[in-house]
Amino acid sequence: MTLQPARGPLTGLRIVESTAFIAAPLATMSLTQLGAEVIRLDPAEGGLDYRRWPLAPSGASLYWTMLNRGKRSVTLDLRTPGGRQTAADMICDSDSGGGIFVTNLPTRDVLAPQALLERRPDAIVVTLDGSPDGISAIDYTVHAASGAAMMTGPEGHVGPVNNAVPFWDVIAGRTLAMGILAAELYRLRTGRGQHIALSLSDIAMETMANLGILAETEVTGAARARHGNWIYGSFGRDFATRCGRWFMVVAVTRKQWRALVTATGLEREMAALSDAHQADLDDEHTRSHLQDQIGAYLQTWAAGLDLSQIAACFEGTPVCWSPYRDTLQMLAEDTRASPANPMFVRQSHPGVQDVLTPRSPLRFSNHPDLAPGQAPTLDTAPKRNGT
Amino acid sequence: MTLQPARGPLTGLRIVESTAFIAAPLATMSLTQLGAEVIRLDPAEGGLDYRRWPLAPSGASLYWTMLNRGKRSVTLDLRTPGGRQTAADMICDSDSGGGIFVTNLPTRDVLAPQALLERRPDAIVVTLDGSPDGISAIDYTVHAASGAAMMTGPEGHVGPVNNAVPFWDVIAGRTLAMGILAAELYRLRTGRGQHIALSLSDIAMETMANLGILAETEVTGAARARHGNWIYGSFGRDFATRCGRWFMVVAVTRKQWRALVTATGLEREMAALSDAHQADLDDEHTRSHLQDQIGAYLQTWAAGLDLSQIAACFEGTPVCWSPYRDTLQMLAEDTRASPANPMFVRQSHPGVQDVLTPRSPLRFSNHPDLAPGQAPTLDTAPKRNGT
Repeated sequence: MTLQPARGPLTGLRIVESTAFIAAPLATMSLTQLGAEVIRLDPAEGGLDYRRWPLAPSGASLYWTMLNRGKRSVTLDLRTPGGRQTAADMICDSDSGGGIFVTNLPTRDVLAPQALLERRPDAIVVTLDGSPDGISAIDYTVHAASGAAMMTGPEGHVGPVNNAVPFWDVIAGRTLAMGILAAELYRLRTGRGQHIALSLSDIAMETMANLGILAETEVTGAARARHGNWIYGSFGRDFATRCGRWFMVVAVTRKQWRALVTATGLEREMAALSDAHQADLDDEHTRSHLQDQIGAYLQTWAAGLDLSQIAACFEGTPVCWSPYRDTLQMLAEDTRASPANPMFVRQSHPGVQDVLTPRSPLRFSNHPDLAPGQAPTLDTAPKRNGT
Repeated sequence: MTLQPARGPLTGLRIVESTAFIAAPLATMSLTQLGAEVIRLDPAEGGLDYRRWPLAPSGASLYWTMLNRGKRSVTLDLRTPGGRQTAADMICDSDSGGGIFVTNLPTRDVLAPQALLERRPDAIVVTLDGSPDGISAIDYTVHAASGAAMMTGPEGHVGPVNNAVPFWDVIAGRTLAMGILAAELYRLRTGRGQHIALSLSDIAMETMANLGILAETEVTGAARARHGNWIYGSFGRDFATRCGRWFMVVAVTRKQWRALVTATGLEREMAALSDAHQADLDDEHTRSHLQDQIGAYLQTWAAGLDLSQIAACFEGTPVCWSPYRDTLQMLAEDTRASPANPMFVRQSHPGVQDVLTPRSPLRFSNHPDLAPGQAPTLDTAPKRNGT
């Protein structure tokens, strides 16, 4: 098995990074999986996030390992002027396709965006910070500011509910990757590099605007409220089974709705509901208005069945549903989280034995052999003199 | 004001789309903001999502409006053979930079990826579906399967907690945009197009693996548990103020931790805690182990102060924190969600008056004038005969 990425669509692209945490390492890791070469610059003892939880029994960070696959690591201390000079040389002296520097850490003197662009006008310098006003911000504080924490959680809950997954970081990572490639296309056309800057808080506010939630708040003068596990504006929620499991079912389209009614055998009940309210349940907004009544019938149905029986009812139909699973149940029950899914291979990394490792989720017809990449050790390349 | 995107890094890129819902429209909308030209193909009455909530008083969908900015819409009925032929002609007859087709809807005959690639070998055909096994799946069912819903929510809560924001869709959208640009770079180098396929469920499973959560589950044999509003593996949680508000504070780095102790005046208490446990609170893992004790001191401190007093304590320090805000509070209190933030402009759209509208969150030094784009009406271009 090829442990490092095969030659993919981005073959020839070369990136140097000085990064920590999630968004910036994820951006470049995503590009390694499409064929880019990425060199991390790391202090000898590893950076801020090199020992972050979760850990393997060896002490290796599973978090750092998975976010830095497909990269090489060069030991270099950017706290010293000599280290920064060496880094600037690495960035600026590389061939076309190189000259790309990605960082979410403070930069100064020869590594500042303007300095790199003066030295190499076709450099692409990418900086990520927390907030455009310069305050300290990470995913969890951005989430608090985004409005989303007051929309999440069980109905009736008072107070904020945080994300368990740092979604804003993940969105920022892929957005950065998009930006790097856009700048590379511009550079190929014009020969000009540039500085791309992103603030994590802008990702959150942009997303709340892109989904129409900010506009709704302006138009209605009211905050988007907490809706529990209901889908806002359509029909969908969680249901409990007889065997103590839960499943999510949605009916966003008419096809999904009709399939759900048929599969559950609730034709008569739904027709009566429709008659009683003079309402067309084929209409998504009507289903949203009558969600409590529809949900009560479905919960009664679900409470009489085990999850396996419910799965049998829905199998082969267009019903849009899924059991809820914790991560252990996912690995045990869902073949999509196994090597049966071409996205996953089982692979070892330094200090980490044989774990499910994802390739790019994008399947390119010309590049079926993209590999997931193996994490580096901190000394995979000859040490450079950084002082 | 320029309502349509200025010429950005992607000037010359031309995309045709037949899309609905979030991920696919977001992918192309993100590219319009960087200068790409995008033409939507829409049935005369609008597609599946044209009337989705939230709505403006005019009945216009704020959701559809915000996700389709910067695009043109051409009326074309792809349910008819003639409509599909016209679409295939539009895709295949365009100049270089064109030949790109994005869809998350079923394709057939002349619009199938293989057919388009046979007709135009340098076409880039991008398809998004729900699940690699062909079952129906959308963000909410993918979330149920991802493990994340069983990790989210208040401590002690039993059962799943859904996301209030369709994060998986948003990640998928930016991932698709990254993929389109990677394929365009490959096409420029080789002259070859290709088919890119993505399944939404793979985005969720990939993310859970990229963050080390799947590997942790394999290594420990236990599911990642629910941790309430605590940050896993570090120190951070929500606190309630005297005035009935909440704020999030984190101490991921030593600098953030020391600033927090100083700003709250809890030096003596933290030194005593450190002595009692023979533990170095400058260490992130130690702060995680002692989170309950640290949190209790901080909650006592916070409960005696109003949010404005807490803000005053933290202002100008490296403390990493944020008040929680609902979306109305965000618009009222946070200048980053206003035209004071260069990302936002106030702008009208068809049927939607003067709402905060975001430009790309990426700030390109060569393209400071990127515009947020205005939503199309369904007839912004001459109607084509689709039958």
